[in-house]
Parts: sequence; C-alpha cells; structure tokens
Amino acid sequence: MSNKNIFFILCRPQLGENIGFAARALKNFNLTNLRLVKPRCTWPNSKALATAVGAKNVLQSSKIYQSIDKSIGDLDMVFATTSRQRKVNKKIISLMDFTKKIKKNKKIGIVFGAESSGLSNDEINCADYLVTIPTNKNFSSLNLSHSLILFCFEIFKYYSKKNFKFTSAYKSTLATKSEVNKFLTFIIKGLDKKGFLQPSHKRQSMIRNIHNIFHRLNLSEQEIRILLGIFTTLNEFNSKSRIDKKFS
Amino acid sequence: MSNKNIFFILCRPQLGENIGFAARALKNFNLTNLRLVKPRCTWPNSKALATAVGAKNVLQSSKIYQSIDKSIGDLDMVFATTSRQRKVNKKIISLMDFTKKIKKNKKIGIVFGAESSGLSNDEINCADYLVTIPTNKNFSSLNLSHSLILFCFEIFKYYSKKNFKFTSAYKSTLATKSEVNKFLTFIIKGLDKKGFLQPSHKRQSMIRNIHNIFHRLNLSEQEIRILLGIFTTLNEFNSKSRIDKKFS
Repeated sequence: MSNKNIFFILCRPQLGENIGFAARALKNFNLTNLRLVKPRCTWPNSKALATAVGAKNVLQSSKIYQSIDKSIGDLDMVFATTSRQRKVNKKIISLMDFTKKIKKNKKIGIVFGAESSGLSNDEINCADYLVTIPTNKNFSSLNLSHSLILFCFEIFKYYSKKNFKFTSAYKSTLATKSEVNKFLTFIIKGLDKKGFLQPSHKRQSMIRNIHNIFHRLNLSEQEIRILLGIFTTLNEFNSKSRIDKKFS
Repeated sequence: MSNKNIFFILCRPQLGENIGFAARALKNFNLTNLRLVKPRCTWPNSKALATAVGAKNVLQSSKIYQSIDKSIGDLDMVFATTSRQRKVNKKIISLMDFTKKIKKNKKIGIVFGAESSGLSNDEINCADYLVTIPTNKNFSSLNLSHSLILFCFEIFKYYSKKNFKFTSAYKSTLATKSEVNKFLTFIIKGLDKKGFLQPSHKRQSMIRNIHNIFHRLNLSEQEIRILLGIFTTLNEFNSKSRIDKKFS
C-alpha cells in the first residue's frame, strides 16, 4: 500500500542526483509524492533519472512549484526539517517523535531545504513543527537523500504497524531432538571406539559438553545428514590410514 | 562519543561515490570504522573523497581487505545485510530487531554486499544473523549508502539511550496566562467599541472562542507585543479611515 497522504517537498534542490536518490528512497518505502520548489538544476534532469533507477515514475509524477507557500497550500500539517537551532517560537521535535505528531487521514508535508544551507528562516514560517534528526554534534550535515530516507523509514514503520518477521527460504526442517540424540549416540559410539572419551572419570562431562554443543546449534535434518557423512568419512579415513601404516 | 566497537564492511563496492556517502553517513552518527573488501573501483578514489565531504578522515582510515574472512577475523559478532530470501539455516531479523542482538563491549561487524547483487551466498556464511530492512515489496533495492545510514541511525539511537529533546534558540519567554489575558481584555474592549461582539446574547460565546484561540497559541511575550501593535495600528487606521470617510 502506498501512502497518498504524505508529501515530500524539496526546496531549491541543487543537485539532480539527490532528487533522483530521493525518488528512489520514497519508492523503497511505498511513498510516491514528491514536490520540488524552484529546483536550481535543469529540469527534467538526466542525473536525477540515473540515480532514481526503478523510481523514475516518482520523478515523472513529481510537481514543480514556484514558492513554498504554493507547494503546501493543500496540506493539513507541515513539518520543516532543520539541523540548526532556530530563533523562532515553534516546537522542535526529534525524528523519533515525528510520527507521534502525524494525524492519520490528514495530508502531511515534510519540507527539506537546499543541500548547502537548509531551509531559510522564511521557509520554515509555514511549519507546524520543526523536526531535527539527532546526530554527531560535530558533524551534523546529512546528505539530502540520507535525511529523507530516515524519514521514509520512520513513516513506513508507523503505517505498517506490524511486526516484521522474516522467514528463510531454507527448506529442510529443524531436526527433532530425537534425531539429534541419534546422531550424538552415533558419534559417541565412534569416539568410544577410538578411546577419545578417556580418562573414564571425565567421560560423562565430556559427553555432556558434546551434547550441549550439538543441541544448541538448531541443526536441520539436512545438516544432521551432512555431519553424519563427515564423521563417517573421517572415521573410515582414519581407520584406513592406520591400516596403511600397519602394512607399510 | 564515537563507537569504536562497530565495524562497517563493504564487500566488493563498485562506486566510489557510494563509499564516500557511506563514510559521511558513519561520521554523521559518531561511527568511524569502515572496511572495504576488494573494492572494484580505483582506490584511493576521487569521487569517494568528493561525496565524503567532511568525513574524509573516515575514508582515509578505512582498511582494505582481500577477503571477507580476513575483514571480520577480529570481530565477535557478524550481521550480514540482505534484501533477498536465502536458502540457509540462519536467523533472519529485521532492522528494528538488530540492536536487540548487539552485545555491548563486543566487536560487531555489519556486512553489505555489492550495489548490483548484494552479498553472495558464500559471503553470508560467516554471519551470526541476516538482517533485512523492511521495504516496499515491489521495490526493495536500496542504494548502498541508504541501507547503511538506516543502520547508523539505529545504532546511534541504541547507544545514545537518551531522550532527544531540542530547545529553540528563541529568546523571548512564553507569555504568562495573565499577560495573555491582559492582551485579550485589551482587544475585547476594542472590539466592543466597534460593536463587533453583537448580538449581545452571542457576546459571551464569541469571547470564549477568542480566548480559546489565543490561549492555545503558546504566544511569547514578544509575540504578544507584536499582536498588540497590530491591533492598535488597525484600530487607529480604521478610526482614521472612518474619519476620512466622514469628512470626505
């Protein structure tokens, strides 16, 4: 589901590359509305098309405005992004608190300033809130598309409101505990034959350690088969080499 | 505070620009350790220096490795990033759960694949966990530095463990309620003189509405003065224009 109520507004963007990266970031997170206020690069822009890769449709449906006021005229709430302190009587919130202020079913605008200087004091007048991304205080200047994708991800999480559980495409099912135990019985028998579990008063704690290792591994049935093959092969190989030694 | 225990590892990166953007993103969030495995661009790389802007030191202190195994040899835990499903018996977690798995004071590696194809199945062998960034299912390919900065921000939040409260540099203090009330008394007096608060049975509810508007605004002392000036000026202007009309 793409979110039609969120509008990203870039004020006086300078680099086509960044506009393309912004379009890609929006589409990565099901967002589609991009607005540009007085872009300072040529438009349409070939570099923007290159960095947008599969999000060219977001670029092509983006709208150009001649003033910030026109770009936000139809919106209900406006958030202006800033990394600098501002001498205005406006609430400043962090990116983490931003989605708490979103009102569902309202049209929300998020305004970003030019790469070099951010938003001017006049450009933030229209905002309900200023939003700051907490950063390294000594190096707070984020790339424009980097700032934007951090917003996109917060919005995506907010609207998804579900736990993201991923499942592996791995087919083999987890071995049952009895399969693991059969495997362990097999290798312990082999190790006993070789005299590995000596001295006898330590035998039980060595077995316990081996059990702990293999039960902890969440082995699949396939992996049990692989390990069985390995141990069998090593066993045969060692037996043979001993035989070879004896007769050589 | 920069975090010395987190290592970002780019496997076979193709574009110098992305390496520079990655360095910048790291520094934005107090991270400094960048490792490159077999970069496929020339190195050092002028485009990387350009996009790193103020994070050239991160680039210059980055280390080059000839294999992923060498790049992670000194680390305690490795997370491999993937957007694709994998046929491996490994835990897959979302970016939101990633910081829950970090063990403090352990050396943590986060491995990213090449721009075009991500990590190969061999490159994820070493990982304790696979991490996926939840995205638009139909357009899940993020720019390399975009993926990376989403991790940087999660790590920054995790290690900061504080509420980010921002304060405005705005100097004027919030007007007290009594100052707002004085202002309201002043304008209501003015409106009464003009006969605005008519008919009289609606007067009280109109006054209530006006009170609600101005008490809600969190006006500063300075803003109260500005509004007083505006109302006084309008009052004078209107009086004058009425006088002008009378005598014209």
